[in-house]
Amino acid sequence: MRRPGRHFLQIPGPSTVPDRILRAIDNPTMDHRSPEFGDLGRRALDGMKTIFGTESDVIIYPASGTGAWEAALVNTLSPGDRVLMCETGQFAWLWQRLANRLGLTPEIIETDWRQAADADAIEARLRADTGHEIRAVCVVHNETSTGCTSDIPAVRAAIDAANHPALLLVDTISSLGSVDYRHDEWGVDVTVGGSQKGLMLPPGLSFNAVSGKALAASQTAALPRSFWDWGEMIAANKTGYFPYTPATNMLYGLVEAIDMLHEEGLEAVFARHRRHAAATRLAVETWGLEVLCRMPEHYSPVLTAVMMPEGHSADALRGIIHSQLNMSLGNGLGRLQDRVFRIGHLGDFNDLMLLGTLSGIEMGLVRAGVPHRKGGVQAAIDLLADGAAQATTRAA
Amino acid sequence: MRRPGRHFLQIPGPSTVPDRILRAIDNPTMDHRSPEFGDLGRRALDGMKTIFGTESDVIIYPASGTGAWEAALVNTLSPGDRVLMCETGQFAWLWQRLANRLGLTPEIIETDWRQAADADAIEARLRADTGHEIRAVCVVHNETSTGCTSDIPAVRAAIDAANHPALLLVDTISSLGSVDYRHDEWGVDVTVGGSQKGLMLPPGLSFNAVSGKALAASQTAALPRSFWDWGEMIAANKTGYFPYTPATNMLYGLVEAIDMLHEEGLEAVFARHRRHAAATRLAVETWGLEVLCRMPEHYSPVLTAVMMPEGHSADALRGIIHSQLNMSLGNGLGRLQDRVFRIGHLGDFNDLMLLGTLSGIEMGLVRAGVPHRKGGVQAAIDLLADGAAQATTRAA
Amino acid sequence: MRRPGRHFLQIPGPSTVPDRILRAIDNPTMDHRSPEFGDLGRRALDGMKTIFGTESDVIIYPASGTGAWEAALVNTLSPGDRVLMCETGQFAWLWQRLANRLGLTPEIIETDWRQAADADAIEARLRADTGHEIRAVCVVHNETSTGCTSDIPAVRAAIDAANHPALLLVDTISSLGSVDYRHDEWGVDVTVGGSQKGLMLPPGLSFNAVSGKALAASQTAALPRSFWDWGEMIAANKTGYFPYTPATNMLYGLVEAIDMLHEEGLEAVFARHRRHAAATRLAVETWGLEVLCRMPEHYSPVLTAVMMPEGHSADALRGIIHSQLNMSLGNGLGRLQDRVFRIGHLGDFNDLMLLGTLSGIEMGLVRAGVPHRKGGVQAAIDLLADGAAQATTRAA
Amino acid sequence: MRRPGRHFLQIPGPSTVPDRILRAIDNPTMDHRSPEFGDLGRRALDGMKTIFGTESDVIIYPASGTGAWEAALVNTLSPGDRVLMCETGQFAWLWQRLANRLGLTPEIIETDWRQAADADAIEARLRADTGHEIRAVCVVHNETSTGCTSDIPAVRAAIDAANHPALLLVDTISSLGSVDYRHDEWGVDVTVGGSQKGLMLPPGLSFNAVSGKALAASQTAALPRSFWDWGEMIAANKTGYFPYTPATNMLYGLVEAIDMLHEEGLEAVFARHRRHAAATRLAVETWGLEVLCRMPEHYSPVLTAVMMPEGHSADALRGIIHSQLNMSLGNGLGRLQDRVFRIGHLGDFNDLMLLGTLSGIEMGLVRAGVPHRKGGVQAAIDLLADGAAQATTRAA
Repeated sequence: MRRPGRHFLQIPGPSTVPDRILRAIDNPTMDHRSPEFGDLGRRALDGMKTIFGTESDVIIYPASGTGAWEAALVNTLSPGDRVLMCETGQFAWLWQRLANRLGLTPEIIETDWRQAADADAIEARLRADTGHEIRAVCVVHNETSTGCTSDIPAVRAAIDAANHPALLLVDTISSLGSVDYRHDEWGVDVTVGGSQKGLMLPPGLSFNAVSGKALAASQTAALPRSFWDWGEMIAANKTGYFPYTPATNMLYGLVEAIDMLHEEGLEAVFARHRRHAAATRLAVETWGLEVLCRMPEHYSPVLTAVMMPEGHSADALRGIIHSQLNMSLGNGLGRLQDRVFRIGHLGDFNDLMLLGTLSGIEMGLVRAGVPHRKGGVQAAIDLLADGAAQATTRAA
Repeated sequence: MRRPGRHFLQIPGPSTVPDRILRAIDNPTMDHRSPEFGDLGRRALDGMKTIFGTESDVIIYPASGTGAWEAALVNTLSPGDRVLMCETGQFAWLWQRLANRLGLTPEIIETDWRQAADADAIEARLRADTGHEIRAVCVVHNETSTGCTSDIPAVRAAIDAANHPALLLVDTISSLGSVDYRHDEWGVDVTVGGSQKGLMLPPGLSFNAVSGKALAASQTAALPRSFWDWGEMIAANKTGYFPYTPATNMLYGLVEAIDMLHEEGLEAVFARHRRHAAATRLAVETWGLEVLCRMPEHYSPVLTAVMMPEGHSADALRGIIHSQLNMSLGNGLGRLQDRVFRIGHLGDFNDLMLLGTLSGIEMGLVRAGVPHRKGGVQAAIDLLADGAAQATTRAA
Repeated sequence: MRRPGRHFLQIPGPSTVPDRILRAIDNPTMDHRSPEFGDLGRRALDGMKTIFGTESDVIIYPASGTGAWEAALVNTLSPGDRVLMCETGQFAWLWQRLANRLGLTPEIIETDWRQAADADAIEARLRADTGHEIRAVCVVHNETSTGCTSDIPAVRAAIDAANHPALLLVDTISSLGSVDYRHDEWGVDVTVGGSQKGLMLPPGLSFNAVSGKALAASQTAALPRSFWDWGEMIAANKTGYFPYTPATNMLYGLVEAIDMLHEEGLEAVFARHRRHAAATRLAVETWGLEVLCRMPEHYSPVLTAVMMPEGHSADALRGIIHSQLNMSLGNGLGRLQDRVFRIGHLGDFNDLMLLGTLSGIEMGLVRAGVPHRKGGVQAAIDLLADGAAQATTRAA
Repeated sequence: MRRPGRHFLQIPGPSTVPDRILRAIDNPTMDHRSPEFGDLGRRALDGMKTIFGTESDVIIYPASGTGAWEAALVNTLSPGDRVLMCETGQFAWLWQRLANRLGLTPEIIETDWRQAADADAIEARLRADTGHEIRAVCVVHNETSTGCTSDIPAVRAAIDAANHPALLLVDTISSLGSVDYRHDEWGVDVTVGGSQKGLMLPPGLSFNAVSGKALAASQTAALPRSFWDWGEMIAANKTGYFPYTPATNMLYGLVEAIDMLHEEGLEAVFARHRRHAAATRLAVETWGLEVLCRMPEHYSPVLTAVMMPEGHSADALRGIIHSQLNMSLGNGLGRLQDRVFRIGHLGDFNDLMLLGTLSGIEMGLVRAGVPHRKGGVQAAIDLLADGAAQATTRAA
């Protein structure tokens, strides 16, 4: 049965790919060794530096984001190396498991999955590591499973306060291009990114931004690697080419995405995400539901995870919304399965799409018989319509 | 400056073209005299019969809708012929002007542009025309400038009651594929249609559905014609071909559109439009604004024209909504200029798109300082979320 | 059964639509009354002036080319007006028939369909028309059915030599954007164009370029008209808008096409067409076949019609080439049915596409058992590979 | 400067992506955890089994082909493991280098890069390996750098004859979907594939087809792995889902590609490639140039590498053809740099595209001043036009 109208893809990524990027991607594939390709490659590589906020190297992998996690580890670490990881949610947990499988020794700082990384705990642990056995600290910037965003400068400060030489590895897969991020200024060593969230592309590209310190570490890192190896990539990238076949059509889309982000202005993009997140939380609170993230300073601009009232199934609600209202919401992951639903408000998004989204949720709550108060959408409208909000929009 | 997210194209046509149709249209142009073309042509021609509800001939013009108006007249009438037209709004007025320019003698039944065609007035006029000088009655099914939909069976009954031989010509440009319509069953002689509304295509195709009586009239009709002439069209169409170059890529989209309408089911499509119109009117009334159409039995399922409070500019409101909220609304046409705005809720559309649309209007009213009561969107949500509405959706 | 690889669409139009234009056309339809639309409209209208070589008005119809023929006549002439037409082939004949149907009185200068318009005959006829009953001279610039191109400046000179006030109407449907053309410089009054040939678009747009004299004539021309009427078009076009719904998505493609023609350079485009036509004729002659056009100064740069040896069916050959070799060639039209096939070498085309085309014909001749000498492709390769040809290409 | 017409992308991959696949790829990205996704995933996974000729598991990576090389090794082998590799050319050499970097111990059977794998040499080496230290034999099915295709059943027979337990790993990146291949029937343990050659997609997907024996080996293989790990993939794939974000839009294209291959018929696809390769070699020989592959039984159906006459630069020739004739040819890789050029005749390709390609090369030889005899294209035309060839085409 055909379902009329646009599907609302309100999962926290992949985000809705704008027409302009889809059109770019479906251009004929070109020879990746042709003279013309070098220009495309350089535009993509240089452009990504502006998105990461770095003047160091950015690596572009023809692979999805999980691969860039692996790349960050295998290029900088050796078998058995101890890495300190903050389990902020399911994706932090998956990264830790990946580290484990690669033969590293992850050490976990646990959380209740309702907050972001705890810089104090990191500092305490690093201070205790007087032998400097910990080789890297791994933090997920925006935890896609919980809607909590970590304070990376605080983590950097914690490492510095502990006077610890560990590398700082940050996953920005779901924040890059949506949340303010500064690889160089914040002293990050490896930043991991993906294409299908704030960059507004389909999945299929992923990134490592690499500091000089990380590059130096890669000289001695002993984990076996080839596909993910930075060395040949950086050498070939100097002229805009790649050592093996790149995902050419995705690169067409990437240069378009970079242009689009700069046309809007990165600051405006970040402000837009914060504003939509605020409106979403206001709707959730008005409904009488609880936002999973319990620390306001950790609220994610990218997604909002909402706790279901006791005795109600998040997946039943999502199912009704999907089948009756043509909208996809994110499910609860891992220990949150069926207990939360996640609202993505990222990427190529605007006020009316958000209000359509929130309307769909309010209708879903009615249809699923989930106890709630009316008025969430109205509250969001009131917030978004007012002068200050308007000013923000205009500034954008 | 880039405006993020999807534009909300909420004018009463062109409606939003779904991706599936855009993808169809951008396929390579084929030879319109090739063996393969005949299949495409037949699918388009036969398919359009199911949309018009006719077993007679349907003509497909590689031209926009105004051309099909002209075609309906030049194929059936002779210079000086008297035609009875109901001025239900701007488009009825334009059709009358077109008739005038072609050398016909239109006679107007005026309205206040707040209702649809008056069948009683038509009957009275036809009864008075004892000499049968009136050769055709022209009615706009859905008046796009006012949001009033005429009762075509009532008009047919009026003609029959007057025992008058005039042809019945009906413009369904903005209703076809959105509002129940039955060319044969309702005894219409020429139905005029266009591609860019309920058919969900870009503008560029238009249609005449032609009764046997109309075809007979074309044998003696003396208005000069060539491009619009039915004769060669019908002859060539028998094998799926056209006497001159058709708009091939638009035909790719047309067969896709026909498939999509049948996949959803025409009845479901019509019910969906009625439901969205009801929710829209409820929002308008909740805001304390007035729907232009003042007779409930004439409410259009396709669009809702809303009257601005005295002293407030509809175009100023539309301008704010366009520039700040990335949505296009229809303007007031002719005598309604700046006095109404029109909300299109037609074509490939769903609940969440409608609620985003209504939210944008409510925000626009705030930002433009138009006096109104809050709660229009909430009222629409409540209506759409309830069980009966849900059942309708499911049945679809 | 799937036929692998690109279809070779080597009819004399529609020509192969380049990817860049297809991508432009499949962008979301916009509001044709929005502020942004005016820019698009102006780019299209101003751009078309550069293609026609005019500073006067250009009208863009949301209709295919036959409509623009009709427009040229109904805007300038009155019922019964005498028009002088040169029957250079099927399309000239069809235009004459169209004139007839509109109530004009066409007078024909016949040819054997193997040459272009005869300026001397036109002059003679006009000199004889001392009463100036002839109101217009209609010439097809490039006769698509025969591959003969008329010398428009010579026709202009003939009219001037006869000191005759008739309007000069020229059909450039299959030459515009492929063959040098200068509406103003050559003193043409109405030039008729279409989208699907040199402009590289799908069918669905057509054009009138209009001189001041033609515009003056339209003030008194008495043929009924509305859809085709220049008056409101020109008025609305001043700000980039249209009096009725334009074919918006085709306009997206049109501005792209105009850009593409200027990127290559019109002179280079014209030289490329001449060069490919020369290579095609050389191949045809090498095969021992005869080019239909028998006057070298009339050879078309756009297409080459080839006469079949006595006793051999052009349609049988075309059928084999279509079904076995995945290429469409143009058929013989009217009196040339089954006696010629036509090779289109126009639009977005290059040397390798031409040589693939000619190879397909040479293979088709073998398979269809048509007597011929080998080596046509080889001759074309030799011609195209040589230094002079190369220089031409480089200059482009 | 714009270069008119279609670019001829005649490198041995990426091959030309057909419109139908480009259109599929640019559909809106969907939720990879939605109910609908499972159908897509299953269609892709089951479909790929028919392409590999296997009833075992196929793994689809959201990564380009080099990654699938790595995957084949890390899932089956342990650090230090000895692998026997046939250096048939640059890609075999690169795979060996990759193995080296991963900590394996590759042992090389060298060739002169003018032939495919030597099954006798493999057998001899395996017989000598009485301690069964060799854990895997790695062979490139179609060596993209040389145009030599290895006889995989012969390699299988060699391993069996030596009664050796080594796994057989085969790279079909440039042969899959173009050359007959049978994973199960030929007793291959891991087959490595990529999207951008015979599968007609852009680069960005790669594959492992996995035998039961390979799967068993993965239980004990000690190389660290996570992204490439088969275990979770196979588990999640059972319901059509993936353990981490798949390249959704590429999967849209993949199911389309699989359908297209079956619509034409795999046997017909393979025959078409052989036929085009034969015509290409005939052209090369007619020009008096030498095909790099010196053993007829090793001729590749996918590409033909051509040796340049002494003293002439392949890259200069390629440069002229690229800049003047709008065609990309493959360059000489590694030790063959500047000494050969490579003609890709794979993927979505037909006779006329091939003849355009060969014409471009013949013109390029003229323009670059490369000594050669005329007539290569003519010879290819003669071959392709004859009855037997025609019959093959028809059978397809």
